Amino acid sequence: MEGLFITFEGGEGAGKTTVVQQLAQLLQQEGHDVLITREPGGIRIAEQIRNIILHPGHTEMDARTEALLYAAARRQHLVEKILPALNAGKIVLCDRFIDSSLAYQGHARGIGIDEVLTINHFATGGMMPDVTLFLDVAPEIGLKRIYENNEREKNRLDLETRQFHEKVYEGYKQVLKRFPERIKRVDATLPFSRVLDDVFSIVQHYVNEKR
Amino acid sequence: MEGLFITFEGGEGAGKTTVVQQLAQLLQQEGHDVLITREPGGIRIAEQIRNIILHPGHTEMDARTEALLYAAARRQHLVEKILPALNAGKIVLCDRFIDSSLAYQGHARGIGIDEVLTINHFATGGMMPDVTLFLDVAPEIGLKRIYENNEREKNRLDLETRQFHEKVYEGYKQVLKRFPERIKRVDATLPFSRVLDDVFSIVQHYVNEKR
Repeated sequence: MEGLFITFEGGEGAGKTTVVQQLAQLLQQEGHDVLITREPGGIRIAEQIRNIILHPGHTEMDARTEALLYAAARRQHLVEKILPALNAGKIVLCDRFIDSSLAYQGHARGIGIDEVLTINHFATGGMMPDVTLFLDVAPEIGLKRIYENNEREKNRLDLETRQFHEKVYEGYKQVLKRFPERIKRVDATLPFSRVLDDVFSIVQHYVNEKR
Repeated sequence: MEGLFITFEGGEGAGKTTVVQQLAQLLQQEGHDVLITREPGGIRIAEQIRNIILHPGHTEMDARTEALLYAAARRQHLVEKILPALNAGKIVLCDRFIDSSLAYQGHARGIGIDEVLTINHFATGGMMPDVTLFLDVAPEIGLKRIYENNEREKNRLDLETRQFHEKVYEGYKQVLKRFPERIKRVDATLPFSRVLDDVFSIVQHYVNEKR
């Protein structure tokens, strides 16, 4: 593996998408070959899986079914898109990955972080990101950002209760304790330029280490 | 759990469907409440998952993606259909279950039986069938039965190579060694009435034990 695999985590409205886009520009300006992606990543099998998960009418979906479907979509996206890019030496910036499942399905849905980690290890063949940036913003702030943004299509997860998003946040805190080496916390309530600076300096450390 | 959960396994063309139908009639004649099912079991989420798995064009599907999708469909079928029937005291006859994934994805696709067992334990919450009937027929005989039956729609799995079906058969043999208490082997090359007799007498033993 020649490349660098960086994932971005956080609750709804943490600003992951914007950070990833701006970070990619900074890295490209330094001459790096960057792939921006997010599950399902334009992979048709993964897209079809996501359509099943996010269909607003599928209220009968069991939490373990949902966790297995996320793991399946993750696997296909990894194999078809992320691994080839890493093998080609690219820096891969992925908006959400394994830790989202640990926080959402593992903790918030009550399955258990260990159990969800097991099926995700199966999905990734044991592979983990080189580094993960956790954009830390309290749920009340994150959700407020989302509901003020009318352009963003609301899906089933956005319509979950406030209580659910509080649980996701608790889940992320537990995941951070579990992987203190890999996951770096960034205060995402700071002004955007400051958030981007913090993220960029962490990423540069890993880029230099990899050289 | 009041009911009895019986699963049927074997390669393509082993005669599982016919055995299940005839066995159900025998059990119903004895006054039992019987549910016949098979994955995806008419469960819409599971049906949609199966459509992704069995789509003939999805040749890019990774073996681990496939295994996770089968586990997801299994989970939803279990929760929506099998568990309620067992809780209502029914005898559930299920055409294929966890052992199919162990033989097909675990052994034949080369992922490993242990690894596929792990994600299926996640899917079932550790629950296993009370008894499993393995209808033992060599792949060359099973496949011959299928190709002589023009009414049966060919799906992606039927079109696999002969070599693949040999591996599935080897996989089943390993699964039998692993679960010698739970899985009962029946010689499915015998005349059908004899196969049905053998299956019925095994099942009666478990029905009596459950009383």
